[in-house]
Amino acid sequence: MSDLPKAVEICEKGPREGLQIEPGPIPTQSKIDLIDALSETGLKQIQVASFVDARRVPGWADADAVVGGFLPRPGVRYSPLWLNEKGLERALRFKDRLAFRDAILMSASEPFMVRNQNSDTAKNAHRQHNLVAMLKAAGIHAESALIMAAFGCNFAGDITAAQLLDTIQQAFDIAAENDIVLKRVSLNDTMAWATPESVKRAIGAVRDRWPGLRINLHFHNTRGLGVANAYAGLEMGVDSFDASVAGLGGCPFAGHKGAAGNVCTEDLVFLCDELGIATGIDVERLIEVARLAETIVGHPLPGSIMRGGPLRRLRQGLQ
Amino acid sequence: MSDLPKAVEICEKGPREGLQIEPGPIPTQSKIDLIDALSETGLKQIQVASFVDARRVPGWADADAVVGGFLPRPGVRYSPLWLNEKGLERALRFKDRLAFRDAILMSASEPFMVRNQNSDTAKNAHRQHNLVAMLKAAGIHAESALIMAAFGCNFAGDITAAQLLDTIQQAFDIAAENDIVLKRVSLNDTMAWATPESVKRAIGAVRDRWPGLRINLHFHNTRGLGVANAYAGLEMGVDSFDASVAGLGGCPFAGHKGAAGNVCTEDLVFLCDELGIATGIDVERLIEVARLAETIVGHPLPGSIMRGGPLRRLRQGLQ
Repeated sequence: MSDLPKAVEICEKGPREGLQIEPGPIPTQSKIDLIDALSETGLKQIQVASFVDARRVPGWADADAVVGGFLPRPGVRYSPLWLNEKGLERALRFKDRLAFRDAILMSASEPFMVRNQNSDTAKNAHRQHNLVAMLKAAGIHAESALIMAAFGCNFAGDITAAQLLDTIQQAFDIAAENDIVLKRVSLNDTMAWATPESVKRAIGAVRDRWPGLRINLHFHNTRGLGVANAYAGLEMGVDSFDASVAGLGGCPFAGHKGAAGNVCTEDLVFLCDELGIATGIDVERLIEVARLAETIVGHPLPGSIMRGGPLRRLRQGLQ
Repeated sequence: MSDLPKAVEICEKGPREGLQIEPGPIPTQSKIDLIDALSETGLKQIQVASFVDARRVPGWADADAVVGGFLPRPGVRYSPLWLNEKGLERALRFKDRLAFRDAILMSASEPFMVRNQNSDTAKNAHRQHNLVAMLKAAGIHAESALIMAAFGCNFAGDITAAQLLDTIQQAFDIAAENDIVLKRVSLNDTMAWATPESVKRAIGAVRDRWPGLRINLHFHNTRGLGVANAYAGLEMGVDSFDASVAGLGGCPFAGHKGAAGNVCTEDLVFLCDELGIATGIDVERLIEVARLAETIVGHPLPGSIMRGGPLRRLRQGLQ
């Protein structure tokens, strides 16, 4: 009935994106415990820390301690976030423990880039060029770009397919200046403007221009459409998604208005399980980690399947 | 890209289905206030009360007072729920204020019917026959059937398309015994087993057998797939949905395990607005009612768009 993929890769964002929004402080050991527990679920990609200015994001003042402290599991790639040269320099000190994936960071909305990182498009392009060069000097080929505000922006409105393609083209150009060919692009719905139909349109437009480019999708649930948007991506055959365990990243019940969490990892795994799409992830183990995440943050998190329960066990009990 | 309908009808279930699960007691006047506020949003269908045994559902001991108390708005149809002859008799006393819609109540799972209503399939068929006759004697043609557990059941497992079609056929037979032709069937995912793909399969199977039958979809968000399932229905051109304001019907944070609310009405209206599908409902007004619902129940409810905010106003502010 549709082009559902046979298997998908899910990139866990909970430890990095989820914990920084908490009123915290979250103890360093709790962050490490969460990462170590996630490593045992079958996840192959976990974003573990943000190397950012501790004055702007106090929740990540302990990035070095977290990245130095977790237990790397063979076969799992642990990635950092960085926004500038200083952050990347810090992250590169942990080169043997980390995978540097979404290397080129762009925004389809210039007003958002200005607000979020105090950079206009030209300034950001220059910075990204430098960052890719730094990575290359460290022997790392930056083959993945991340496009923030890929579907819309609270400060710029809807993002057209043409704007999105222009932004991705800029990422290709930055990579090319460093003799690198982009292989993957992450379309991030940073401010939750995407709908299932705009997701399909964007995927179609990107594929028309770059047929071989792998697409990753990153949705927030702020307007309730996170899972429906992910399903629209699956229908288009997209096989890579970001998600946060327990829906970490902002609890709608804690008044973090406009900042609700990512699509919940175990809810997405449950959906894939039911659609016959392999994830390699054990939903029951992930539910245990979701409960750990609730214990760590000290309040309920918005994930559904950790309360509703997956169906596989229920089916087995009925046989 | 798909067969999205141009317009959909949304049937509000919050007052009936949403309030009975609350630890309550919810004052009668609050129920009336909620119904009256919903009447001003553009909704054309509101289920307002349950005429059931007050010993089993104490929250609806005041059904008569609620139904006698709200202010009917011209053009809006207010419907009751009843499960047996006694309930229907009580509801029929308010015939001039109420519309009797989902008249034939079936379950695709016999074990669920036994647990929920202490009736097996044969006993229920007999009862439904009597209820349709009672309605007919009152001058009401029961042209709509409601199928509970249409996609799966915690006590019987997955429901196949064949089982679903058999159940609908029984409803057709009961209607035919009373010289009535069914025009509409509501597929209710009572225990949240549906996935977007099983929704599409079920719709396809029903349409193959009864091309002219109007389909209504009723989803619970227990496993996080409510909106994705509704979107799958929209993709198939379904133009009738149940929903509950603010996602009333069970709060995942209150430990109502396995009983999370219906798809949230204002979230569904937001989705339709963004997809260019007419609902006739004002999402901003509905958000105000969602806030009223939270005040009435005294705790946060799971709706998203009442926190994230719809996009139309945001777009206007940017122009």
